[in-house]
Amino acid sequence: MATINNNFSKLAAGYLFPEIARRTKAYTQEFPNNELMKLGIGNTTESLPPFLVKAMKNKLDLLSNNETYSGYGDEQGDTALREGLCEYYQRYGVSLDPTEFFISDGAKADAANIQELFGKNNIIAFQDPAYPVYVDSNVVSGRTSGFNKKVGAYENFVYLPCNEENGFIPKVPNTKVDVIYLCSPNNPTGAVMSHNQLKEFVDYARENKAIIIFDSAYCEYVKDEDLPKSIYEVEGAKECSIEINSFSKNAGFTGVRLGWSIVPKALIVEDCEAGIINKMWNRRQCTFFNGASNIAQAGGLAALSGVGHQECQNLVDYYMGNAKIIKEGLESVGLTCYGGDNSPYIWAKTPNNMSSWDFFDFLLNKCHVVVTPGSGFGPSGEFFIRVSSYGHRENVVKAILSIKENM
Amino acid sequence: MATINNNFSKLAAGYLFPEIARRTKAYTQEFPNNELMKLGIGNTTESLPPFLVKAMKNKLDLLSNNETYSGYGDEQGDTALREGLCEYYQRYGVSLDPTEFFISDGAKADAANIQELFGKNNIIAFQDPAYPVYVDSNVVSGRTSGFNKKVGAYENFVYLPCNEENGFIPKVPNTKVDVIYLCSPNNPTGAVMSHNQLKEFVDYARENKAIIIFDSAYCEYVKDEDLPKSIYEVEGAKECSIEINSFSKNAGFTGVRLGWSIVPKALIVEDCEAGIINKMWNRRQCTFFNGASNIAQAGGLAALSGVGHQECQNLVDYYMGNAKIIKEGLESVGLTCYGGDNSPYIWAKTPNNMSSWDFFDFLLNKCHVVVTPGSGFGPSGEFFIRVSSYGHRENVVKAILSIKENM
Repeated sequence: MATINNNFSKLAAGYLFPEIARRTKAYTQEFPNNELMKLGIGNTTESLPPFLVKAMKNKLDLLSNNETYSGYGDEQGDTALREGLCEYYQRYGVSLDPTEFFISDGAKADAANIQELFGKNNIIAFQDPAYPVYVDSNVVSGRTSGFNKKVGAYENFVYLPCNEENGFIPKVPNTKVDVIYLCSPNNPTGAVMSHNQLKEFVDYARENKAIIIFDSAYCEYVKDEDLPKSIYEVEGAKECSIEINSFSKNAGFTGVRLGWSIVPKALIVEDCEAGIINKMWNRRQCTFFNGASNIAQAGGLAALSGVGHQECQNLVDYYMGNAKIIKEGLESVGLTCYGGDNSPYIWAKTPNNMSSWDFFDFLLNKCHVVVTPGSGFGPSGEFFIRVSSYGHRENVVKAILSIKENM
Repeated sequence: MATINNNFSKLAAGYLFPEIARRTKAYTQEFPNNELMKLGIGNTTESLPPFLVKAMKNKLDLLSNNETYSGYGDEQGDTALREGLCEYYQRYGVSLDPTEFFISDGAKADAANIQELFGKNNIIAFQDPAYPVYVDSNVVSGRTSGFNKKVGAYENFVYLPCNEENGFIPKVPNTKVDVIYLCSPNNPTGAVMSHNQLKEFVDYARENKAIIIFDSAYCEYVKDEDLPKSIYEVEGAKECSIEINSFSKNAGFTGVRLGWSIVPKALIVEDCEAGIINKMWNRRQCTFFNGASNIAQAGGLAALSGVGHQECQNLVDYYMGNAKIIKEGLESVGLTCYGGDNSPYIWAKTPNNMSSWDFFDFLLNKCHVVVTPGSGFGPSGEFFIRVSSYGHRENVVKAILSIKENM
């Protein structure tokens, strides 16, 4: 008699974005004539950079010829792309080996799967609020006894509150934890950790033999040169950190799918020597994954230098232009806003202590604007909304105008 | 102090194909002038069907335009592709709903991840020999106490021997098991289960409330119209079976990456009602996956009907032509061969009771031909090799000639 993995039933709610989609769809069905403006999901809207498209079409031509066709690639990704990324990191003064890079079909999968490397009894710490995938993947894997409705949080997990008081930068845990998920620039708060703030976490991790999972999917939005783009800019980080990144938000690859993880060979945990975690992730990818699409990988390689890289930078600048409009617009109607400077996300406080979902519904019904309720990212996200700068400029302008007129 | 997932250390050996690659590379380094002919990995070699390439280039054009660009797709896959697959199954008289289809980046990932749906204490049965991913994913997930070197098998797992006596078709378990992995046409043996043979398993599963994971990645190679291509051709299978399939081997998408799983809403297990497993897999995919590449999906849709489908059939016929040459060639040097008729794999008995790896080394060193040692697929694979029909025709002919001349 087969039985199910009961950990699924511990998940507190449907995944956030499908729930937003559900409410949005219901609204559209009720009011089909009201045009909705979406500043909700962090979904890219601008066309792919031409140089990358050219590279992908060229790859399709190679695949159309028996002499140049290739089937399965390496599970770890094409050597050229791993080497290209390696070189790319040298811009930040970070020196890594190509065999420390693992190409994936996107940061989400890596962010969800990476916990498989660690023992079931490891204590996991999350920023609060955080991208739901970190928490949910650990729930499904059996690291919590259940959701505590009273406090709105899962048992056994350690939440590191990110709030106005600490500028949305968490303090290092005051208890011993084993694995810490950090995201900078942060989704959803838009906060970016400074070198010193990251260093505190790296020092904590080294002292406590903990592991940091560092999600830097939005690092290309960091324009302030004093802010780190990679955790490996911090001394000692290679001993204690795995970094996850993506082509989604700088190359517009949300639908094309391409990302990577870095598992340094210097990484150490309590019960095994350096190099083992790198080998384990290699084994995991060789067993559970069969490489990212070769077409996407050709596009990714084209994004790393020259014309392709410049085109990606232009895309990022475009979205950052949106972020500026959104932040100024929301502030002009009296909302307190954070983020949006080195990040595509604006983290706005709800007015009059409205709950996140109430303000979501208000903006949907009164302004026809879709945002993301902050409480969907964790208990400390309550009383905030996340506003995404992904959208066509004219729609962003229209959305802000509608908020200005209807609030 | 972070600790590792110790289940990784229970894995008996490196994943089979990297080990073959290692030996092959070592040989090439020692004898750089000897041309190697590869009949090892089931890796496609012929160029992509032009109609599919056209569809993928067209998708790239759409992604190059702000009006037609799209970012994240549905985690479950594009509706058009799910509907297209639904229609495709009607060729086999199988009626399914599009919401029972989940598009993935390939059958390997699904085959590895699907076990996450089930409780840790479920007893898992595997065909022996079998595609290593089924076993390895269950090892990593903690369903075995370890590898028993004496018997060459993992503890707690149930092996269903496939041998000459039973025509490589396993008997239904004589004990109670909870989850059964079946693959037909089989990788590696090339055996195809008849309708009646499949029905015995479906009946067993329904009686014992067990689940069948049916891998039909090679179903397009079934040319005998009496043989089933989908498990859902068997009455009652929807109540007890999940089917996994792929565009890799018929559309040449091994590197492009695209597959699907079917989780019927009628599926029932002991502790939950119909529909729940479908919802759980949906939740799993929404959390751990972000959809298959939109470019690949455009190609997949083009493969399902008309010109695209015909081109894929031609590809399959080409490889089946290779299979015929290989089987006849191996038989002409006195080897006993199985499979290769409705399957791209020939399962050949080693001569004089040579071990699989010894015969692998013999063929590598004497004939310069790379095959796959049968023992890599499980204990019952010992004394066999798997010969793959994926290769350019001229190389296949050359490989067989070399075997004929040097054996």
